[in-house]
Amino acid sequence: MSRKSKGMNVERELIHMFWATKYWVAARCAGSGSMRYPSPDIIASDGKRVLAIECKSSKKNYIYLTKSEINDLTKFAKLFRAIPIIGVRFNREGWSFVKIKDLDETEKNFVVSLKKAKEKGLSFNELIKTKVL
Amino acid sequence: MSRKSKGMNVERELIHMFWATKYWVAARCAGSGSMRYPSPDIIASDGKRVLAIECKSSKKNYIYLTKSEINDLTKFAKLFRAIPIIGVRFNREGWSFVKIKDLDETEKNFVVSLKKAKEKGLSFNELIKTKVL
Repeated sequence: MSRKSKGMNVERELIHMFWATKYWVAARCAGSGSMRYPSPDIIASDGKRVLAIECKSSKKNYIYLTKSEINDLTKFAKLFRAIPIIGVRFNREGWSFVKIKDLDETEKNFVVSLKKAKEKGLSFNELIKTKVL
Repeated sequence: MSRKSKGMNVERELIHMFWATKYWVAARCAGSGSMRYPSPDIIASDGKRVLAIECKSSKKNYIYLTKSEINDLTKFAKLFRAIPIIGVRFNREGWSFVKIKDLDETEKNFVVSLKKAKEKGLSFNELIKTKVL
């Protein structure tokens, strides 16, 4: 399976999870490749809050995001007045939702370790129920 | 050009228009075909209002939407607390933004005539500036 279709599969899984709540809606955003404007992977809302979510999965213990991915997510979320969040999915660990302030920054990237995701990340249930993120 | 890529081109044109304002953001939603959940063609926001937009273009004087397209748009918009709107683009006439209540209903479809779009539709500038839709 290509990296792109694997990425789409994790996004789809998350969209299913939002719709399964019956009160959140979520849509996958297209064209981050072909369009030159920032857009998150997923936009979700319960009518009160909007989440702008960047999704990443890995079989390893570290997930990397480029600085431009984070800049774009921040820019989009600010104008939309959405909450920017990183949805990380480590194999066999399920989803964890990490705030931008909890990312570690290296010279070239942002990184989420499995350890950090466990310490600082929210579970899906916490994400959808937490009033203030 | 296929019908699908033509549809994508009109969506892209509209996304460019939102970003060109410098205070609206817009993202194209994917997967209305492959995912079974409702999603509009475009979600746009200025941080105050969210628009859920279904886009249609035609070379003729009538634009048709299926009842399920309108039901899906209404459902998505209600849960997201977004404003549902139909963006129609008749050739050589530019964009017009029509509310669901201003659509004409036939037995099988909803329809927007060029005449109705001119009478009831908002221009892009009206759309982005109108406080209450």
